[in-house]
Amino acid sequence: MTPEEFREYGHRVVDFIADYRRDVERRGVLAATRPGEVKAMLPAEPPDEPEPFDAILADLERVVMPGITHWQHPRFFGYFPSNGSLASVLGDYVSTGLGVIGLAWQSSPALTEVEEVATDWMRRMVGLSDAWSGVIQDTASTSTLIALICARERSTGFAAARGGLQGEDRPLAVYTSAHAHSSVEKAALLAGFGRAHVRVVPHDDAFAMRADSLAAMVEEDAARGVRPCAVVATTGTTATTALDPVAAIAEVAGRHGLWLHVDAAMAGSAMILPECRWMWAGIEGADSLVLNPHKWLGAAFDASLYYVRDPEHLVRVMSTNPSYLRTAADAEVKNLRDWGIPLGRRFRALKLWFLVREQGVRALQARLRRDLANAAWLADEVRRAPDWRLLAPVPLQTLCVRHEPAGLAGEALDRHTLGWVDRINRSGEAYLTPALLEGRWMARVSVGAERTERRHVEEMWGIMRDSALGIRDSALGGAVEGPSAESR
Amino acid sequence: MTPEEFREYGHRVVDFIADYRRDVERRGVLAATRPGEVKAMLPAEPPDEPEPFDAILADLERVVMPGITHWQHPRFFGYFPSNGSLASVLGDYVSTGLGVIGLAWQSSPALTEVEEVATDWMRRMVGLSDAWSGVIQDTASTSTLIALICARERSTGFAAARGGLQGEDRPLAVYTSAHAHSSVEKAALLAGFGRAHVRVVPHDDAFAMRADSLAAMVEEDAARGVRPCAVVATTGTTATTALDPVAAIAEVAGRHGLWLHVDAAMAGSAMILPECRWMWAGIEGADSLVLNPHKWLGAAFDASLYYVRDPEHLVRVMSTNPSYLRTAADAEVKNLRDWGIPLGRRFRALKLWFLVREQGVRALQARLRRDLANAAWLADEVRRAPDWRLLAPVPLQTLCVRHEPAGLAGEALDRHTLGWVDRINRSGEAYLTPALLEGRWMARVSVGAERTERRHVEEMWGIMRDSALGIRDSALGGAVEGPSAESR
Repeated sequence: MTPEEFREYGHRVVDFIADYRRDVERRGVLAATRPGEVKAMLPAEPPDEPEPFDAILADLERVVMPGITHWQHPRFFGYFPSNGSLASVLGDYVSTGLGVIGLAWQSSPALTEVEEVATDWMRRMVGLSDAWSGVIQDTASTSTLIALICARERSTGFAAARGGLQGEDRPLAVYTSAHAHSSVEKAALLAGFGRAHVRVVPHDDAFAMRADSLAAMVEEDAARGVRPCAVVATTGTTATTALDPVAAIAEVAGRHGLWLHVDAAMAGSAMILPECRWMWAGIEGADSLVLNPHKWLGAAFDASLYYVRDPEHLVRVMSTNPSYLRTAADAEVKNLRDWGIPLGRRFRALKLWFLVREQGVRALQARLRRDLANAAWLADEVRRAPDWRLLAPVPLQTLCVRHEPAGLAGEALDRHTLGWVDRINRSGEAYLTPALLEGRWMARVSVGAERTERRHVEEMWGIMRDSALGIRDSALGGAVEGPSAESR
Repeated sequence: MTPEEFREYGHRVVDFIADYRRDVERRGVLAATRPGEVKAMLPAEPPDEPEPFDAILADLERVVMPGITHWQHPRFFGYFPSNGSLASVLGDYVSTGLGVIGLAWQSSPALTEVEEVATDWMRRMVGLSDAWSGVIQDTASTSTLIALICARERSTGFAAARGGLQGEDRPLAVYTSAHAHSSVEKAALLAGFGRAHVRVVPHDDAFAMRADSLAAMVEEDAARGVRPCAVVATTGTTATTALDPVAAIAEVAGRHGLWLHVDAAMAGSAMILPECRWMWAGIEGADSLVLNPHKWLGAAFDASLYYVRDPEHLVRVMSTNPSYLRTAADAEVKNLRDWGIPLGRRFRALKLWFLVREQGVRALQARLRRDLANAAWLADEVRRAPDWRLLAPVPLQTLCVRHEPAGLAGEALDRHTLGWVDRINRSGEAYLTPALLEGRWMARVSVGAERTERRHVEEMWGIMRDSALGIRDSALGGAVEGPSAESR
């Protein structure tokens, strides 16, 4: 493709996305595709000869779009918000178009230095002290893996340079709560700790880790020859946005030499609101933390921010220095390849830098406050409604709810919950993802898509009530079109 | 930013990239920025109020562009080619614009199924049997880390589910060559093996691993109670594109139960040429392999393909199954979160799918053959030129060269080599990255940027000779503009 063809087709792609974003509300949220249906529309063999770009764009509509679940839809209430704000999208377009790689500072100095500036802006925005240094990783799963490897190496005095975990006498243990994200256990397993050395610390009624239980477990382990290595606390757990008590956990961690990693992947964005910072009070006592501007804040996926208090330790754990990567500037600059797992990196900072500049901090704060108010409004509605129950506190934008009609309990209640959620999802009118809480299914309503205004939350509440009561004609009537609507 | 503003500014961004790609040859290849210069142009504090998008685009020119090293430049001969072909760039634009996340098949079915199709197209293109299943990772560093973790778990019968590496009696060892990429040792260290258990297998005169030495080391280790776990072979090493003998290594691996991972990150693209496939003969005996279409082939970074013969093993090592990620479709579909480290994934397949369709396999083959011929032409020139020496075979597109005038040796020769390479890089006319070979610096000339035609290679050869002889007026005269040129 020549630059002039790129200009022509690039405008078409931009128009396609502009139209998509403008009209996304008219689509069914969840793809109605059946497994294998997309694949079946595509040839098994790659084409020998070039295809016209028009044919590719036509297949985008014909093959791809029916198989898309619309995360940017204003009635997307599933998982967590993943807002790709349009200014951020353009930052990413510049990055991909320039096609430069951050192997070393010299391999594109602006890539490294804008990343330093953008991560430092975010540090200030969330109220962290200047003792923290940030770097962009792909996702929180990776950030947490890096944290646990760094913890492992601190506890062992850099066993990686010797026999690794294979040369240690006393096993290292990692502590977290049953409400921590699945990526925490995964990281511990990938880092070689073994499931036998992952301790699940009990939680309180609000699903927050109990610091007193942590202290007791750590002391018990230490007494029997296990070395407490790391604790992962969560600010805003996945299922219920529970808030582990960071200050109390940091106190235990400090006393026993544990690495404290704080997973604020979801709730970290809310820390741009001073009124929310109590949620991670004590954060300055942590060794590392992760927050994902690619969730609620609006940076196009993927942009996970990993902050550490001791960047030299991180670099020592992650660095390699082969001759083919050395440059004359190495002594004076950061080489971000030594701050994570991949060697090469995209110019990811642009999408964050564009977002913050185009929006400004106040507008970002206003949007998050809008979402908190919408969630609070819905929480009030649920509290007041007969047979509906809020199952967890709502400090942020996620509600855990159940419709509990008289006489329904146990597995029958589970069937009812999964049934009404599934009816909503299949209708295409809205999307939400259920989860287990204390062994029973609940509905999670995660408010915070960029396009979600109060009216969408009101509509959602109507849809929920209608679906739970088995009323098929929804509040929206025929407003939804597209393939998903056919399945109603 | 509204969809209509996105349409307007999106067209401007597309035009910016179209102009950039059209005119990139007129820029100095290496950024002339000094450390800290970009950062110093940016405010330390994020803006409270929104900035006009025009101001952001103006800063792109003023702040960012002078700090860019131009990987898409036709005289970029550094590191390795990282071609972001423009059709692939548009595939990525669609991905970012749609803003969908592959947490599960259901969270956007087309994301998973197009990835299955695109990775299977690539499998066919490089001549692998249908015993292989592919998935897109970010980079080869990550793919190799995953491979070594999978090897670890196979050797220990899933110790991760028990005590991890902390519960094993006899240590596991990993084998590779001194010419393997730095990411191999890094992966072994991150996976917990420890440097003491990374064995460096000797290489032959062509810098390829010696399979007989591997066999001897494995047997010696086994005899003294160390468990041989994995061997990483390379098809196309970073410094010299050496070719480890995959068939012979696979034979040793098979005999001793080692996991064989083949790093074909760079050379894997060449396997779309049937005449190159002898280079990894025996590949069907490997357990996993990585190849990076984001290097030579033209997929926009990042798109690293990881292929395995036993996807069930990969899924067992990588899977998590929290309730909030379960869907009704799980039994019938692939959930790609269980195929790697991150939970979320971009719709990366689009950039590969667009590339292969817009180009067609034959055009991709023709471009790679062009580059091989250009490298062979330059190799002939170097061989014929007095005082110039080729230091390694040239099976692919990378030349290892030295200018060795009579009387220069040892450190004086190193100074000469680094001197003429640095003069070229600082001139902005071309870019190449030196490396150590057997303890002495050499120049690597990596041919294969998409825009590099024969004339650019001819120009490069003129620049090299002029620079080595200390002639300042280059073959290009005043053709290069921009900040880099000022430093000449």
